[in-house]
Amino acid sequence: MTTLSLHDLNQLSTAAFAAAIGDVFELAPWVAEAAAAKRPFGRVMDLHRAMMAAVHAAPRDVKIAFLGHHPDLAGKAARVGAMTEDSRREQTSAGLDSLSDEEYRRFLRLNGAYKAKFGLPFIICVRRHTRDSILSQFERRLHNDPAREFAAALQEVFYITRLRLAAKVAGEGMPAVNGRLSTHVLDTHAGRPAAGMAIELYELAGERYFQLTIAITNEDGRTGKPLMSGRPLPIGRYELRFAVGDHFRSRGIELGDPPFLDVVPLRFSIAEPEGHYHVPLLCTPWSYSTYRGS
Amino acid sequence: MTTLSLHDLNQLSTAAFAAAIGDVFELAPWVAEAAAAKRPFGRVMDLHRAMMAAVHAAPRDVKIAFLGHHPDLAGKAARVGAMTEDSRREQTSAGLDSLSDEEYRRFLRLNGAYKAKFGLPFIICVRRHTRDSILSQFERRLHNDPAREFAAALQEVFYITRLRLAAKVAGEGMPAVNGRLSTHVLDTHAGRPAAGMAIELYELAGERYFQLTIAITNEDGRTGKPLMSGRPLPIGRYELRFAVGDHFRSRGIELGDPPFLDVVPLRFSIAEPEGHYHVPLLCTPWSYSTYRGS
Amino acid sequence: MTTLSLHDLNQLSTAAFAAAIGDVFELAPWVAEAAAAKRPFGRVMDLHRAMMAAVHAAPRDVKIAFLGHHPDLAGKAARVGAMTEDSRREQTSAGLDSLSDEEYRRFLRLNGAYKAKFGLPFIICVRRHTRDSILSQFERRLHNDPAREFAAALQEVFYITRLRLAAKVAGEGMPAVNGRLSTHVLDTHAGRPAAGMAIELYELAGERYFQLTIAITNEDGRTGKPLMSGRPLPIGRYELRFAVGDHFRSRGIELGDPPFLDVVPLRFSIAEPEGHYHVPLLCTPWSYSTYRGS
Amino acid sequence: MTTLSLHDLNQLSTAAFAAAIGDVFELAPWVAEAAAAKRPFGRVMDLHRAMMAAVHAAPRDVKIAFLGHHPDLAGKAARVGAMTEDSRREQTSAGLDSLSDEEYRRFLRLNGAYKAKFGLPFIICVRRHTRDSILSQFERRLHNDPAREFAAALQEVFYITRLRLAAKVAGEGMPAVNGRLSTHVLDTHAGRPAAGMAIELYELAGERYFQLTIAITNEDGRTGKPLMSGRPLPIGRYELRFAVGDHFRSRGIELGDPPFLDVVPLRFSIAEPEGHYHVPLLCTPWSYSTYRGS
Repeated sequence: MTTLSLHDLNQLSTAAFAAAIGDVFELAPWVAEAAAAKRPFGRVMDLHRAMMAAVHAAPRDVKIAFLGHHPDLAGKAARVGAMTEDSRREQTSAGLDSLSDEEYRRFLRLNGAYKAKFGLPFIICVRRHTRDSILSQFERRLHNDPAREFAAALQEVFYITRLRLAAKVAGEGMPAVNGRLSTHVLDTHAGRPAAGMAIELYELAGERYFQLTIAITNEDGRTGKPLMSGRPLPIGRYELRFAVGDHFRSRGIELGDPPFLDVVPLRFSIAEPEGHYHVPLLCTPWSYSTYRGS
Repeated sequence: MTTLSLHDLNQLSTAAFAAAIGDVFELAPWVAEAAAAKRPFGRVMDLHRAMMAAVHAAPRDVKIAFLGHHPDLAGKAARVGAMTEDSRREQTSAGLDSLSDEEYRRFLRLNGAYKAKFGLPFIICVRRHTRDSILSQFERRLHNDPAREFAAALQEVFYITRLRLAAKVAGEGMPAVNGRLSTHVLDTHAGRPAAGMAIELYELAGERYFQLTIAITNEDGRTGKPLMSGRPLPIGRYELRFAVGDHFRSRGIELGDPPFLDVVPLRFSIAEPEGHYHVPLLCTPWSYSTYRGS
Repeated sequence: MTTLSLHDLNQLSTAAFAAAIGDVFELAPWVAEAAAAKRPFGRVMDLHRAMMAAVHAAPRDVKIAFLGHHPDLAGKAARVGAMTEDSRREQTSAGLDSLSDEEYRRFLRLNGAYKAKFGLPFIICVRRHTRDSILSQFERRLHNDPAREFAAALQEVFYITRLRLAAKVAGEGMPAVNGRLSTHVLDTHAGRPAAGMAIELYELAGERYFQLTIAITNEDGRTGKPLMSGRPLPIGRYELRFAVGDHFRSRGIELGDPPFLDVVPLRFSIAEPEGHYHVPLLCTPWSYSTYRGS
Repeated sequence: MTTLSLHDLNQLSTAAFAAAIGDVFELAPWVAEAAAAKRPFGRVMDLHRAMMAAVHAAPRDVKIAFLGHHPDLAGKAARVGAMTEDSRREQTSAGLDSLSDEEYRRFLRLNGAYKAKFGLPFIICVRRHTRDSILSQFERRLHNDPAREFAAALQEVFYITRLRLAAKVAGEGMPAVNGRLSTHVLDTHAGRPAAGMAIELYELAGERYFQLTIAITNEDGRTGKPLMSGRPLPIGRYELRFAVGDHFRSRGIELGDPPFLDVVPLRFSIAEPEGHYHVPLLCTPWSYSTYRGS
C-alpha cells in the first residue's frame, strides 16, 4: 500500500481528498468530505480527530446507518468455521478463525442476541483483541443499555479508523497505535544475562494455547526484536515459557533429577494494546521472579 | 493394620518374628529369618538394614529368584488399561491407572523390551514416582548394563521394603520415608500474608494435568495442612496455581482489565521423595517471585 | 520477682489486693482499690482494663495529679548525662543513657518546652521506643493541644501499666505485650538455607549505629532464638547486616574481587512493638531480596 | 586538550610522532620512538599494544629505570596530608586527598615498606581505584615476590598509559577504558517506574561514606545520565540510597509510622572498572530486591 503524506493531503481538492481517504470510515465518504473543510492539519492525529468529530456531529439516523453498514463479524467467522482445521489455523488475522466448536456456537448465539437487542452488527476493533477477549467483550456489551452500547460501538470505530488512517497516511503527529511486548532474562546465579535461552510465547483461548513466537535470547539476555511490536497488542491472556532447565544444564550446574525448575511459565494479561509490556525473568536453578517492567 | 512394636519384635521367637514381618520382602521369608539372628535392634532403620544385608549376602541365584518373584507392573497396568475412563481416574494409587492410550502403549513396549533384555520384571517403588517418572525411569534403566540394572533393582527393593517396614513396625529410629510439600503466600503489596487465596496443585503427565489438591490459605497465608505429606512425594513435575487476581480484586485494588496477573502458575519438579519442598509465592498485582524455601 | 496468680488475686481482701498490685499505677494505690470491687476477673487483660477504667472515671484533678506524680524523664537522662562515656554505653535500659551531646541538649530543650506548655512531666512508655523515637514523639506531642496530649499521656500510662501488670501477674488472658523480630536466610544460588552466616542487628540513633545482637544462622538458615523477643520491640529504625560475601566464599563460589555483594544491610523500621517482624534475606552472590514476612 | 587523530599520527615523522605522544609513558620518549617504526596502526589499541611491546622488549635495567621514574604516590599524599580538611575534601582526583589520619599513617607505613622491599615507587593506576582499594592493593602487593610485583607494576603502567593514550588520540579501535554505573527503580506496588525518587551514591572508605552523586529518577525510573560514566569505575565499595519512603508517601500509600522501609541502602562493590554495572531496585512499601543487571 502506498502511503499518502499529510502534507499532500492538505493540498488536494476536496474531491481528491475524499477519494484518497474516504474508505477509512466504512462506506462513509461523507466523513472525509466533512473533515476536508477543516484543513490544513498539522498532525495526523488531528485529521483523525476531525473525522471522528464529523461522525459525532452527524444526525442520529446517519450515525445508525453508518454503524449498520459495518460488516458482520459473524459472517466472517461463519465462513471460516466452514474451513478445514488446517486452514483455520493458518488464518489468524481476525482471531476468529480458530474458534473451537464450542466457542463458535457461543459466538453465533451472542451474535444473534446482540442483533436482536440492538438491531446493529457487533463492531469491535479485532486487531486490538484476542479471540478470548472478543468473546468476553461480546458478552459484556450485550448487557449494556442502548445508549451506552452506542457509545461503545463508536469508540471501536475510533480504534478501527485510527489504525486504518495510521496505515494510510504518513506525517507529523502520528497517533500511537502500536504496542510492544519485550522480555529480558537475567541469570542471577551467574550475575549476567542468560544468553541462548529458548523462549516461547502463547496466546490463551479458553483452555487452549496457541503458539505465537519462538525466540532465543542474545548475549544481553534479550530477544533480537520484541516478542510483539509494530501492531496493537491484542487484549487477552498470554504465557511466556522459558527453557530455564536447559540453560543451567548447558552451564554445567548440578541440578536435581528432574531439575527443580525446567520450563518456567509466566502467565500474564495485556489490557493496553498501545502500551509497552516488559516482562522479564530473573532466575537461578532454585528461584525466579518477574514483574511488569519498563 | 496393627503396628508391631520394635521392642516386641526383639523378644519373639525366630519363627514368630519371621511370621510377623516375613512378607516385607516379597515372597522371601528367609530375609526376615536371617535378620532375626541379628536381634536385638535399637532402631527400626537398623532392622531394615539387617534385612537388606541379608539380601545382599544371598547367593546370586537366590537374589535373582527373589527379584523375579516381584509382581509384573505391566500386568497391573494392563488390567487397569481395560477399565473404563472413569474407573481409571478413580484409581491413582499406582499412578498407572490413568495412562493415556499412547502412554499405555509405550509402557507395554518398554515392559517387553525390559524383560527381553534382563529376564526380570521391572521393579520400581511406585509410591516414590509419578506416572511420568515411572515411564522415564523405565526408559533410562533399559539402557543400563545388567550389573548396573541389577543394583538399580535392589535399590528399588530397598525403597519398597523400607516403606512397608515403616508402615508395619513402630519404635525408635524410624526410617525417614515421608516428604512434605508446603506453600506460603505473602502479599507484598499489603505487607502481610495473603489470606483466603485459592490454590490448586496439579501433577503433570506428558501434556496432561491431574488435579491433586485444592486449598485455601489461612490467616497466615499457609494451607491448614501441607499440600502433600505423610507419604513419599512422587518424583515428577507439578504445577501450583494461585488465584492472585481474585485476591487483589477482593482487596479492592484497581487492576487492569484483564488484570496483569490472574492465575499464577508455578511449575516445579520434585526429585527427593523424602525431602521437604517449600514453594512460596510473594506477589503484588504486578510482580511475583518464588524459590525453593525451607 | 515472684509472680502472683490471677486466681489468688481474686480471693484476697481488698487491702491485700491493693497491697499486692497497688504500685502498678505510679503512686496511685486507689486505682487498685477501685478495681478490687470489680473482682473476680477471668483474664489478666480484664483486670488491666478495670484499672484503666478506674483512672478514666476519676475526677479530672485526680487524673492530673496522678500524671504529675510520674517521674521526670529528664531527670533520669540528666543523671546519666553526667556519667562517663563508658557508663553511658553500659546503661541502655531506658534508651536515654547513650544520647549524644546534641541529642541530650535537644532532649533538655524539649523537656523544658513540654513542662512550660502542659505543666506535666512527659510520660512515655520507654520500653516501647528507641531513643530516636522518644525524641521524635517528644517533638510531635509538643504540638498537641492540651486535650489531645492528655489523652496521649493516658495512652502511655496504659502501655506502662500493662507491661508492669503482665510482669507481676500470671493467669488466663495475658495481655499481648511482647513482639518478635526474626530473620531467615535462603541461599537461592544453592537452593537451600544459608547455614553459618553471621548476622548483626543495629539500632539507628540519628546518624549513629548501636549494635544490639550478633547471631549465626543454623542449618535451617534461622537464628537459634529470635533477634528480639520476650519484650516490646522498641519503635524505631534498625539495620540488619548479613555476611553474604563470607558465606559464598566459604562455599567456594568464584566471586569478583572485591565481591559484588559482601556485607548486605537491610534497613527497616518497627512501628508495632507487640507485632511480629520477620525480615528474611534471599540471596545469591549477585542479587538479593527482602520483604516483611510472617 | 586537543585530540590527535590516529590517521595524522600515522603520517608524522618519527620525531614529530615522539613529540606528540612521547609523554604517554612517564619520562620515556623512547617508547614512542620504538612504536613509531611499527606504523601505520589501524586501531588506537594497536598503537597502545605496540608501545607496551616496546616496554616489554627493553632490557631489564631500562625497564627498572622506567618504573623508578614514576612519581611517588606517597609524596602526593604527603603534600595533601598537610592541607586543611576543607582543601583535602576538594581534591578527590587521586582518591588520596581525603585519607583519615589513620589511613594516612597506614599509607606512609606501606610506602616505606614497599620501597625497602622493592626499591621502586608503588605504581598503581589511581583512576581505577577508590582510596580503600589503593590501600588494600598496596598491602596485597607488598606480599608479592619481586618477579610477580614487577609484572604487577607493568600491568598498572598498561592501565595508566591506556587511559592517557585514549584521552590524547582519537580514531578507530579505541581501547575500552570507561565503565558505567546505572540504576532503575520499579515501583512494583503500582506496576510502573518510580518517578521523582531521590537517589544518593556514596563511596565507602573504611567506616566513612563520601557522597559522589545525587540524582532524581525520571518518568522511566532512571537517572538522566548514568551515576558514573565517561571514566573507569574505581574499584571499591559503594552504597546507593533510595528515598523509598518519600516516594510511597507522595503516592498517598498508608505506611507504618515510622514506615517499614524509608531510606533503602544497596551496598555493592565494583571490581571491573571498564564494566557496566546496572544496579536496579524493585520495591513496594514492604519489600525490595536488587540484582546485578545489564
